[in-house]
Amino acid sequence: MTYTEAAELLRRQDNILILTHRRPDGDTIGCAVGLRAALRELGKTAWVLPNADATALFTPYLEGYLAPEGFSPDFVVSVDIASRGLFPDNAKCWLEKGVDLAIDHHGSNEGFGKENCVDPGRAACGELIYDIVRQWGPVSPTAALPLYLAVSTDTGCFVYSNTTSGTHRVAADLLDTGIDYRSVNKRHFRTKSFKRLRLESMITEGMDLFDNGTIAIAAVTLDMMKALDAHEEDAEDIAAFAGQIEGVETAVTIRELRPGECKLSVRTSAGLNASAVCALLGGGGHAAAAGCSVMGTVADAKAAILDAIRRIQQG
Amino acid sequence: MTYTEAAELLRRQDNILILTHRRPDGDTIGCAVGLRAALRELGKTAWVLPNADATALFTPYLEGYLAPEGFSPDFVVSVDIASRGLFPDNAKCWLEKGVDLAIDHHGSNEGFGKENCVDPGRAACGELIYDIVRQWGPVSPTAALPLYLAVSTDTGCFVYSNTTSGTHRVAADLLDTGIDYRSVNKRHFRTKSFKRLRLESMITEGMDLFDNGTIAIAAVTLDMMKALDAHEEDAEDIAAFAGQIEGVETAVTIRELRPGECKLSVRTSAGLNASAVCALLGGGGHAAAAGCSVMGTVADAKAAILDAIRRIQQG
Repeated sequence: MTYTEAAELLRRQDNILILTHRRPDGDTIGCAVGLRAALRELGKTAWVLPNADATALFTPYLEGYLAPEGFSPDFVVSVDIASRGLFPDNAKCWLEKGVDLAIDHHGSNEGFGKENCVDPGRAACGELIYDIVRQWGPVSPTAALPLYLAVSTDTGCFVYSNTTSGTHRVAADLLDTGIDYRSVNKRHFRTKSFKRLRLESMITEGMDLFDNGTIAIAAVTLDMMKALDAHEEDAEDIAAFAGQIEGVETAVTIRELRPGECKLSVRTSAGLNASAVCALLGGGGHAAAAGCSVMGTVADAKAAILDAIRRIQQG
Repeated sequence: MTYTEAAELLRRQDNILILTHRRPDGDTIGCAVGLRAALRELGKTAWVLPNADATALFTPYLEGYLAPEGFSPDFVVSVDIASRGLFPDNAKCWLEKGVDLAIDHHGSNEGFGKENCVDPGRAACGELIYDIVRQWGPVSPTAALPLYLAVSTDTGCFVYSNTTSGTHRVAADLLDTGIDYRSVNKRHFRTKSFKRLRLESMITEGMDLFDNGTIAIAAVTLDMMKALDAHEEDAEDIAAFAGQIEGVETAVTIRELRPGECKLSVRTSAGLNASAVCALLGGGGHAAAAGCSVMGTVADAKAAILDAIRRIQQG
């Protein structure tokens, strides 16, 4: 259904529960909080289902918005959830009882909702939620701030290639409500933990470059994480780190999960098929971004992925 | 004068020379190239004065736009130049002969033009140039791409606190012309040289933190630059590096210029007056960003600035 139809459907409901996805990011959290705020302003009872995976970066946005124990909804909405597999454990029951409306921007959306409002042309699901809530009247700063979080985080603050003119226009409208977007930008795009910087240093110093610097292999070892007393959030989105190096066309990031097991991410920007490379090691993914696992040391994983790259290069 | 008046004034001219500022950034280059493109489409002869300081990051945008030897203009426009001191050597003659129109967004603009179109409310001078050129009709992709460069670089790709809803709306309009803004984003905001990453590693490993991590003192030494065979562009905007660390309120960056001479940058975000700190060492600036010099080693500079911070802290 279209966003105007989704807005109309929501307007007729009450006692609404909003679901976010596993390992929640700024988009799913921002959409849930923004939608809840707007529904509340319409006089509805609406809550966001608690999400056990939410990290300290996002939990402050959820404060005061979480469903109380025993809340029994009459209408269930999912935001930014593409597949059944992305439902957190405490949300799985709604897959059986039924999700009344799924709002999403992933082209791969499985269509699990009774009604589905899916627009893959949007950089963030937050753009779609904005279009829905503005049907109900002027968007308040309370709803606009989390929607700005959604739109900005899913586009890396308007730098990723999914950003469109529509994204900028939504951002402009949200800024006009008078929100403190500068704090969001500072917190999410201009702040790094010292542990993160030291982790980046270690990765840089241990980086292997091949073929005149067009192939980079980076590693995050258990020793590094231990030496820094680093947490999972210090390593967030670390797979993008090596790909930013000037001249690098194939960026591999090896993550040592436990002794003898490594997870690899391969990102390519110049034609090499990352999915084909990873398939040789039992993995898969997309042409420009894929992954696989190697049972062995970090050195084993380096050797294996370089060999796989060579085999695909040679056709 | 207003931008509509500036547009009208420019429309009546021909043989136009466009001046950029010393150590040119994306805003001054983007404004010059974008304005030249739009004037050319109006049938005017217009050229950008060559700028000897332009780095490899920006010279490609200037290709085909530079004034030929001996070009004798009837009208001279400066873009994004705030003060007489920022005129490159080969542009200084126009300070005497006269700059017919100065277009700028700096509140500190000295008003050296015969006519001045200055709007400090704009994040980038490129926003103002956009408003001028759109008075002449639809903005072409040829003009829009450099204007996107201008707007995006001066806002760190819409992340700096100068970004407004107006900035996003200009960006949206520019994107709608069909320009390859993704390449601009990739080149300017998602690419770092390996030397730059290694320099950041060295700075991180040598960083001194004080007062529970609220004060950071970073140093870029001659030895580091030599060890990496790094160039000036690898150290661009390095003064912002320490300030991104979570919890840091006072970020000092020491740059060893030559043996026995250091340049210091102080940025504060929690009330400490950076200008007062630097004044103790003979420097100055703004409350949140100031600078000074110390004749001595990097260790001398560290001791001196920490002492200055302590004195201002104690009132």
